Amino acid sequence: MSTAPDTRLLKQVLATVDGDDPRLKQVVSALVTHLHAFVNDVRPTEQEWLAGLDFLIETGQRWCGPHRNEFILLSDMLGLTTAVDDVNHRGPDGMTPSSVEGPFHSPAPPRELGDWISSGPERDRATPTVVHGRVLDCDGTPLPGAVIDLWQANDTGLYDSQDDSQDQGNLRALLTTDAEGSYWFRTIRPSSYPVPTDGTAGRLLKAIGRHPMRPAHLHVKVTAPGYRTLTTHVFLAEDPYLDSDAAFAVKPELICVPRRRESPGDQERWRMDGPFEEIEFDLRLVPLDWTADDGEQTEERQ
Amino acid sequence: MSTAPDTRLLKQVLATVDGDDPRLKQVVSALVTHLHAFVNDVRPTEQEWLAGLDFLIETGQRWCGPHRNEFILLSDMLGLTTAVDDVNHRGPDGMTPSSVEGPFHSPAPPRELGDWISSGPERDRATPTVVHGRVLDCDGTPLPGAVIDLWQANDTGLYDSQDDSQDQGNLRALLTTDAEGSYWFRTIRPSSYPVPTDGTAGRLLKAIGRHPMRPAHLHVKVTAPGYRTLTTHVFLAEDPYLDSDAAFAVKPELICVPRRRESPGDQERWRMDGPFEEIEFDLRLVPLDWTADDGEQTEERQ
Repeated sequence: MSTAPDTRLLKQVLATVDGDDPRLKQVVSALVTHLHAFVNDVRPTEQEWLAGLDFLIETGQRWCGPHRNEFILLSDMLGLTTAVDDVNHRGPDGMTPSSVEGPFHSPAPPRELGDWISSGPERDRATPTVVHGRVLDCDGTPLPGAVIDLWQANDTGLYDSQDDSQDQGNLRALLTTDAEGSYWFRTIRPSSYPVPTDGTAGRLLKAIGRHPMRPAHLHVKVTAPGYRTLTTHVFLAEDPYLDSDAAFAVKPELICVPRRRESPGDQERWRMDGPFEEIEFDLRLVPLDWTADDGEQTEERQ
Repeated sequence: MSTAPDTRLLKQVLATVDGDDPRLKQVVSALVTHLHAFVNDVRPTEQEWLAGLDFLIETGQRWCGPHRNEFILLSDMLGLTTAVDDVNHRGPDGMTPSSVEGPFHSPAPPRELGDWISSGPERDRATPTVVHGRVLDCDGTPLPGAVIDLWQANDTGLYDSQDDSQDQGNLRALLTTDAEGSYWFRTIRPSSYPVPTDGTAGRLLKAIGRHPMRPAHLHVKVTAPGYRTLTTHVFLAEDPYLDSDAAFAVKPELICVPRRRESPGDQERWRMDGPFEEIEFDLRLVPLDWTADDGEQTEERQ
């Protein structure tokens, strides 16, 4: 597929990239280099090239607005958001890996440890679930007073902002870890769901034979003084889309196994009045001053 | 600048690119590969990445419409349009090189050989110019009946569509070559001009320290049965922007030297009533059935 690029033209273009901002110069130079390599690889016809530009126009004009950003969706669907996330969040062994924030974060109501965060009609339908764990340093030191910002879809795969049957703030919470760095809350099991398919990203997915599904997950953002903010997913082990997440956000360390609990002792311990599932997930944060021993490609970029 | 790409993620994304259209699969796979390489090269922060996506949104929403296509302009400014043009128009030695069409083509009025194509107020201000030459096969065979579609800016750098002082069709013409494959017409010398700078492309040019100027040129599209349609520019030799065309459309073979003519004989020959400049430019077309001897990277793509 690859052909020798027209280096004369590329050099000519690169020679014009200058200006006062060395970072911008670096970024534009790299973009120009890679896009010229793309053109030389695929040798687009003029009709194909214009069709590509029309795709960008339609994406901006028709599918981006106050409540939608189709370019972010495209970035997610091509694994680029995860690639950007990865280069910005390298860290030590034992850290909980970062994962993309996605479009559904919004301010969450503060709640007490143990609270139900589900108060909509899904409470009567869905699998009751207890989620608990600790926020820790990578060396295992508990972090009391860490704040966990949590959001999840319901059992039909909808967030409060997409679903009139849910009150604003449903299935969202701000929780603070206790003196042992522990947290827990009661909720329902979320469902997998499709990303929006009516726009250009959906058209692309269909054309390349891909499904639009994201595996079921809880979304968390954890902050603690002296530590990097961690945004990540908690995935559920048996989800059929774990190996084909449309957003490429799954990492093995983020998958946990919900355990079925039925005994009166378990029900009493977690204040449940029937069978439920238990999810245990620890969140291990990276100190702000962490640097890689080898110093290679691992510094934090903020 | 370069770092080892996250090949695990890239492979994962590429494994999802399939579908019924092998060409689309090839294009999307190459795009994904080059964009991931870009991310790994520049390691954008999340803020930088979102700023890049916002740039695309603004380009589509604010600067594209029925009379403007800022994505084409960006493609021009980054040399990508010329790169696409180049991979589609390789041909034999002696061919007139292709060059980008740009945004100003529109239907032109048929005119007779020798006609004035300038009838606006520029006729009283600008340098009178005679343009002539032949349309030929690459082997030098004249092509009678070839149609030359011509458009140019006036002496202030404006096309009819940008300038209320010009009638529609001013400085445009459809001419047909005579029995010897010759053409000629009378016009005025065009001026260099800036591309639009009020949009995202202009902002980018400014940020990377570039001027927006295109060197003075005539634009031609030549059709003849049995030959590839040739779209190209004719540039004027002493233009200060020849070495820094904002659209990277200049090729050495497309530069011609306007010659000052003052003698009564010259004036009589070209039906001019005063001093003028003479531009001679032959246009050499490539047969539709041309193929490279070595067959390597040179077939026509339509």
